[in-house]
Amino acid sequence: MNRICELFDIQYPIIQGGMVWCSGWNLAAAVSNAGGLGLIGAGSMHPETLREHIRKCKEATNKPFGVNVPLMYPEIETIMDIIVEEGVKIVFTSAGSPRKWTSFLHSNGIKVAHVVSSSTFAKKCEEAGVDAIVAEGFEAGGHNGREETTTLCLIPAVRKATDLPLIAAGGIASGEAMLAAEVLGADGVQVGTRFALTHESSANYAFKDRCLSLQEGDTMLSLKSVSPTRMVKNEFYMQVIAAEEAGASPEEMKELLGRGRAKMGIFEGNLVEGLLEIGQASALVHQLQSAQEVIVDMIQHYAEAKQKLTEQADEEE
Amino acid sequence: MNRICELFDIQYPIIQGGMVWCSGWNLAAAVSNAGGLGLIGAGSMHPETLREHIRKCKEATNKPFGVNVPLMYPEIETIMDIIVEEGVKIVFTSAGSPRKWTSFLHSNGIKVAHVVSSSTFAKKCEEAGVDAIVAEGFEAGGHNGREETTTLCLIPAVRKATDLPLIAAGGIASGEAMLAAEVLGADGVQVGTRFALTHESSANYAFKDRCLSLQEGDTMLSLKSVSPTRMVKNEFYMQVIAAEEAGASPEEMKELLGRGRAKMGIFEGNLVEGLLEIGQASALVHQLQSAQEVIVDMIQHYAEAKQKLTEQADEEE
Repeated sequence: MNRICELFDIQYPIIQGGMVWCSGWNLAAAVSNAGGLGLIGAGSMHPETLREHIRKCKEATNKPFGVNVPLMYPEIETIMDIIVEEGVKIVFTSAGSPRKWTSFLHSNGIKVAHVVSSSTFAKKCEEAGVDAIVAEGFEAGGHNGREETTTLCLIPAVRKATDLPLIAAGGIASGEAMLAAEVLGADGVQVGTRFALTHESSANYAFKDRCLSLQEGDTMLSLKSVSPTRMVKNEFYMQVIAAEEAGASPEEMKELLGRGRAKMGIFEGNLVEGLLEIGQASALVHQLQSAQEVIVDMIQHYAEAKQKLTEQADEEE
Repeated sequence: MNRICELFDIQYPIIQGGMVWCSGWNLAAAVSNAGGLGLIGAGSMHPETLREHIRKCKEATNKPFGVNVPLMYPEIETIMDIIVEEGVKIVFTSAGSPRKWTSFLHSNGIKVAHVVSSSTFAKKCEEAGVDAIVAEGFEAGGHNGREETTTLCLIPAVRKATDLPLIAAGGIASGEAMLAAEVLGADGVQVGTRFALTHESSANYAFKDRCLSLQEGDTMLSLKSVSPTRMVKNEFYMQVIAAEEAGASPEEMKELLGRGRAKMGIFEGNLVEGLLEIGQASALVHQLQSAQEVIVDMIQHYAEAKQKLTEQADEEE
């Protein structure tokens, strides 16, 4: 998995996904200091808040880090200017077309990765000239593709569509899953859920506690008429289902969602009325750790799983 | 991956999933003759048709083969009696509780595997005394679990819940996916989609052609108010969506589905009105092959993928 490490000048090909209300400077710096690539999630920040997080991150680490920018962000020009002004060297873009911003970022010496959920969009990324692609499957938390392709089916399809450095995302929370992603054709992994549930994540501890106790089937892809989002099946989710069953229009669903639901749930810890975005991999994560412990654990289990296969291969000879 | 081979006395830990209107004696025998485990799918057969298929399969192969039995089958007692009378040695059960039939099958010298979509049901299988568990993820074709857990998240969860021999299913159509499943904790794989699209599959060639041309996003899990089923997004699927959006009750959905839709689509090749059950892995399968070619290809790619990791490990030392 060396192409991703070379591209971003990091030790391990583990990217911490940009996540609203979880990934501020504290998490990003902790991941980068531990040898991965931390990303500040701009999606939940006002422009000047982002500037503050970038500055704090630069103080907290001398390792490479990046910013994740959802391209449908209303103040996108301001955000991009701040990124350039503050000397950020890596940007992950998502939720939009990579065509518009990639050349701007490149002309400012910034490396660009774009998040997709299909091989069709992966090809568009290649045409737009991005440096790497994140392919994110159905099991991922938060905003999600409409085609519902799972990571297991998505990675080989994207690998076939492009030779670019490829980062697998969705359902990856262990060293074994990291090795599985590599076998399927990925050069690295992006990990969201497991980093959202670390000490350094800025999510509320009530949110972290709830998510650490989840079992299989406790999250669901919902809000499909607005924007498909994977969330915990809490009371707010039940309201969404009830409204859908009552035949609510997309406009009515948007009104039910309102503004600030994710902040309410993830940042303020309102587990009842909040929108609790988290991935299926939450069913495999039950321990609150530091970002460094997560990376050490993943690299150790990755190595052990690889060693096991190597020993088998030796026995077979 | 030796436990599955030992349990069923087969050469490769590749099980051909039992699939309505695809897996008769011809496909099952071809898979078994090629070193995998072929399964006759009883789900689409009258009891005496099943007897005929078992007899023809015994004539066509001297290798082990099995029968897949959905336990909600209306003539289940007759089916089980025929299986015993005809000397079948392996039964895969699905769609029901393994508690009732496992001891009956064991007392007749028959090995039992049961298909689950969660670790909770995997534990129930262990309590029921089954010999192996098939854990099938959201990406699988046809009938599917309600929790929508993907294979990538399901296999580690089931592996943690039980030490029984574990067969991964859903989204597995290549040797690389087979190795990925092993890394995640599986002892073997069950392959549906790719075998449904072989020469020996009894599906209509119109169905096979259509499925071999599918891309990502061309199947969807649907009919959730009746029984979640992954299918091609054809005209019948659009009718289902329209009815759901119009607020159809489960009873109305059952009426729309009617009887014989899967037969119409898969066996008779009515691509417009039929229910075309197939998995997400169809986006990765574009060539009509024989069952033997599929197995040879999977084993070759499995070995190559393993070799690649082994070489990397050597370089890292």
